[in-house]
Amino acid sequence: GSAKPMKSDVKLVGEILSKPPIVAPISITIEEASKILIKNNINHLPIVDEFGRLVGIITSWDIAKAIAQNKTSIEEIMTRNVVTTTVNEPVDVVARKMDKYNISGVPVVDKNNKVVGMVTSEDLSKLVGYTIKW
Amino acid sequence: GSAKPMKSDVKLVGEILSKPPIVAPISITIEEASKILIKNNINHLPIVDEFGRLVGIITSWDIAKAIAQNKTSIEEIMTRNVVTTTVNEPVDVVARKMDKYNISGVPVVDKNNKVVGMVTSEDLSKLVGYTIKW
Ligand SMILES: C[S@@+](CC[C@H](N)C(=O)[O-])C[C@H]1O[C@@H](n2cnc3c(N)ncnc32)[C@H](O)[C@@H]1O
Repeated sequence: GSAKPMKSDVKLVGEILSKPPIVAPISITIEEASKILIKNNINHLPIVDEFGRLVGIITSWDIAKAIAQNKTSIEEIMTRNVVTTTVNEPVDVVARKMDKYNISGVPVVDKNNKVVGMVTSEDLSKLVGYTIKW
Repeated sequence: GSAKPMKSDVKLVGEILSKPPIVAPISITIEEASKILIKNNINHLPIVDEFGRLVGIITSWDIAKAIAQNKTSIEEIMTRNVVTTTVNEPVDVVARKMDKYNISGVPVVDKNNKVVGMVTSEDLSKLVGYTIKW
């Protein structure tokens, strides 16, 4: 039969933001970026300017790309055209956005493009674990 | 208010397996593993023996760990104690399992420990995007 819709009380990105975002300046090296990912157990590292505004993103996948393609600088591997969300976006909208762009994390930005959080597929996957009932 | 439970028609891991699993032998190098991750746009690479049975897993996070800790061989960075699932496990059970171990992917194995698929937080996140209704 066709999938019955899931009903959920958790609605907005702002409701699932757990920790303050970990970000880094564009001046870091690939090794420094790797250390930040490992130290914080994360896969997504927004890159910000001196005002905390989003300029790009580095993921553990980009680090693998650096190895696979012999790239040596952050500029060569970082993504600049970053898909973002806001605290007021519904969780199903951001889930579809991640699916559409085939990404596993989106920075949460405010109206000044400052990074205020990070939402990953791991955060959304938790909703499946804790608010599903049969 | 307390979260109302989500009701979902999608129940078992077997129902969300999309592609055949991409696996690799333990003999590969870190560079080869990185190329496989990039070529296939994946973050999780189960490592199998000559019979296709699971012996470990490598993720893009492990590639970043290799850079951060100057490791040069797969043996040094792969995880051997792999959390797995089966086609008959409910999706909310595997979602909680991933949360508990802070991992974003689990290989799907059969009774002979052969890898028959891969479930990632991205797969579960899609459920949030397409079967949630308010
Ligand atoms: C602990 S997670 C932390 C970062 C992030 N949560 C993630 O899943 O990438 C990263 C580590 O988990 C390991 N890992 C990934 N999938 C696993 C699984 N199914 N069972 C056991 N360990 C796994 C990886 O090999 C890597 O060393």
